[in-house]
Amino acid sequence: MEKYKSNEERIVELTYLLENKNLTELSDLLNRTNPVDIVEFIEDLPAEEALIIFRLLSKEDAVEVFAELDQEDKEKLQASLNDDEFKELLEELNFDDMIDTLEEMPATMVQEILKSSDNETRDLVNEYLQFPEYSAGTLMTTEFVEVKADMTVEETLAMLEEVGKDKVTVYTCYVTDDTHKLLGYVSLRMIVTREPDTKISQLMFEDVIYVHTTDDQEDVAHTFQKYGFTALPVVDNTNRLVGIITVDDIMWIIEQEDTEDFQRIAGTTPDEADYSKTSAWALAKNRIPWLMFLMISGAFTSTILKRYEDVIQTVIALNMFIPMLTGSGGNAGSQASTLVIRAMATHDIEPSDWAKVVLKEITVGLICGLALGAVAFLKCFFLDKVAMNVALVVAFTILAIVVLAKAIGSLLPIVAQKLGADPAIMASPLITTIVDSLGLIVYFNIAQAILPGLNI
Amino acid sequence: MEKYKSNEERIVELTYLLENKNLTELSDLLNRTNPVDIVEFIEDLPAEEALIIFRLLSKEDAVEVFAELDQEDKEKLQASLNDDEFKELLEELNFDDMIDTLEEMPATMVQEILKSSDNETRDLVNEYLQFPEYSAGTLMTTEFVEVKADMTVEETLAMLEEVGKDKVTVYTCYVTDDTHKLLGYVSLRMIVTREPDTKISQLMFEDVIYVHTTDDQEDVAHTFQKYGFTALPVVDNTNRLVGIITVDDIMWIIEQEDTEDFQRIAGTTPDEADYSKTSAWALAKNRIPWLMFLMISGAFTSTILKRYEDVIQTVIALNMFIPMLTGSGGNAGSQASTLVIRAMATHDIEPSDWAKVVLKEITVGLICGLALGAVAFLKCFFLDKVAMNVALVVAFTILAIVVLAKAIGSLLPIVAQKLGADPAIMASPLITTIVDSLGLIVYFNIAQAILPGLNI
Repeated sequence: MEKYKSNEERIVELTYLLENKNLTELSDLLNRTNPVDIVEFIEDLPAEEALIIFRLLSKEDAVEVFAELDQEDKEKLQASLNDDEFKELLEELNFDDMIDTLEEMPATMVQEILKSSDNETRDLVNEYLQFPEYSAGTLMTTEFVEVKADMTVEETLAMLEEVGKDKVTVYTCYVTDDTHKLLGYVSLRMIVTREPDTKISQLMFEDVIYVHTTDDQEDVAHTFQKYGFTALPVVDNTNRLVGIITVDDIMWIIEQEDTEDFQRIAGTTPDEADYSKTSAWALAKNRIPWLMFLMISGAFTSTILKRYEDVIQTVIALNMFIPMLTGSGGNAGSQASTLVIRAMATHDIEPSDWAKVVLKEITVGLICGLALGAVAFLKCFFLDKVAMNVALVVAFTILAIVVLAKAIGSLLPIVAQKLGADPAIMASPLITTIVDSLGLIVYFNIAQAILPGLNI
Repeated sequence: MEKYKSNEERIVELTYLLENKNLTELSDLLNRTNPVDIVEFIEDLPAEEALIIFRLLSKEDAVEVFAELDQEDKEKLQASLNDDEFKELLEELNFDDMIDTLEEMPATMVQEILKSSDNETRDLVNEYLQFPEYSAGTLMTTEFVEVKADMTVEETLAMLEEVGKDKVTVYTCYVTDDTHKLLGYVSLRMIVTREPDTKISQLMFEDVIYVHTTDDQEDVAHTFQKYGFTALPVVDNTNRLVGIITVDDIMWIIEQEDTEDFQRIAGTTPDEADYSKTSAWALAKNRIPWLMFLMISGAFTSTILKRYEDVIQTVIALNMFIPMLTGSGGNAGSQASTLVIRAMATHDIEPSDWAKVVLKEITVGLICGLALGAVAFLKCFFLDKVAMNVALVVAFTILAIVVLAKAIGSLLPIVAQKLGADPAIMASPLITTIVDSLGLIVYFNIAQAILPGLNI
């Protein structure tokens, strides 16, 4: 523990050793460094220096480091490695990491590599490449431990001693029949705490929770969160066990899915690349379509204002409250839509709950609207010193807009979900734009109803 | 696998068996049901029926089910159990779950329970209750496996066979010295794949990643995500190993922290309770303070519009573009602030990157602003048929507002972070409100500069 260094200190030291070409000490320090931290170090190095570091790593670490690299850095490294080195590396990767790497490569290069693989691998790779995007199939790996129900604890341990090193996890072993149909699972904890002659059939849980190859990764992540497992088995459409997914991969999926929701709520096209690594051009390209769409939809407010020009000319005092009114409507709508989008993402509410949710939001809207309306009335009447009936128009409009915004803000994400779209597209930017237009219409109608001398 | 039932079917069957008091089959089916699913079933039952189910569970399942219940349901169940039953249950809980339960109970009841505990437990509980809220200390549990460097693989397996059942995980064993200082770790996978007489000291990794009891849970979650571990050791300020945190607890923390960010971005007070379980009153209470604050800040726009009343009266055409202009500014600002908030939450950018980020956003703002301004000019001139110089005012204002919104939207979350506040409070609602006012000032100033006959 005395040797523990913060990551910054460690990178400073690695850089120093590399600059001074002190390869022995460099190799020694790399050996004591977590591959994830080595990746952080390697990412910022020029290709030739990255290659020096990479060749100093133990085979195990090299494989892990490669798997963790960005696509761009992978390609950089691949270009510096010779063909044999690269193929050896590919073979050592876990199956899911190998697939990830192949998927990003040109098809001709993939063919080239597969040519020299055995039939089984080739078939498996082709099967993988056909799974739908973002499905459990694309996340799973084939390095799992399969046991038979009639094996004993002793036999299982002996088998693990032999094959355990090549499996992504040995902590859950999956029990299958002769046709690889999934029968149950048994944890290594149970195995090591029982007598050697105990049969797996006595230990196994039959009530195994599993996912299908075609299940969406968001549902897989939800299953992990719900049950707290560290690995889940994946079965094909005939219930044969074909792979497992481990929790470390799922943690990234959860972060990615949440980031995607944040991006949509922000009104931008989702982008898997990190913000820090996205250029200003790329960011602008993701944002302009939405900004443009919203500006053009928002321009509908100009039409409304033009239509009610006479009303404004007659009671100019009405005009100065417009931004405050539409702003409050937008805020009230954002609250409803964002919370409903999140509650659907965490499976707290389902589309079938729509009536309950919208009713609740209307109630919330009434409470919030009354509070805001009262304060707005006092502010307009006493501070802005407008006529009492103008202050009343503002207060009633606030109430109506807030209720309307809550109803629309909660309903639209649920409708999107029902239609199979991502509910997060119905987030504040769109809700705000809709509420702006509706709010103005409500405002002028209330004004015409309450104030004397306005043409209806 | 033939027995697999969807959760809904299972709950229907459990309900049927309960209604018909078929306790033998009920008990059998409960035995084959994951505790997480039993919790879903129990939650909706009246107290006396929940108690029937609870008493049918195996001790292991009962403990897990209790730990997973909501506070409210825990209290309901606790009220129906007798004192001895409840105390026995408490003792069987994992330490972290016991602490969670005690924390929510009245202090007098906690004293009563602790009175009959042994000294060690009492001291431990008191120590736990003093950890800062949301710290690693409050998440950790004490049921970890501690081994010594001079033990052999065989001795370790023998020990695990004995104590393994009572530990939350046996898959990572922590190596400590005589004073419990953390020296390293060894995985069960390595233990089961090595010769029986191998020493732990030969297998252990010294480069152990750990967290401190006082570390914030958000940082702990980030460490889990970064390294993909399933458990992390927790040390006190003298580097003694005092507990471990497991990944299943962290998955909830990640969901909670992200939900909190969504809630702040929505402009509501964060609330740990699920949306579906929060009453309309409670939702309104969380939302009114922000809505009120934003409405009052937004009312500043009224002052600005009043100040420029003459300008509007002179060129009434200017008025009709106000909602579109402020709307576009708000959208542009939301994009920047939401993406920056998320990038800071995932540690993609740090506060020290502020200059780079703001510069990038200004560039993005220029690109987006030019695109939007051009379209707005065409729309105003050809469709709305306003004078060319009015259309120019609108176009220049769009450009200026979008750049300003991007700069403010990216800067304020970073400033909040630097000041130790949650960056997510600087989200779209606040940015929109600020940009509304600034945008109007910019608009009228550009109008006065370009249009003839307006008093400056």
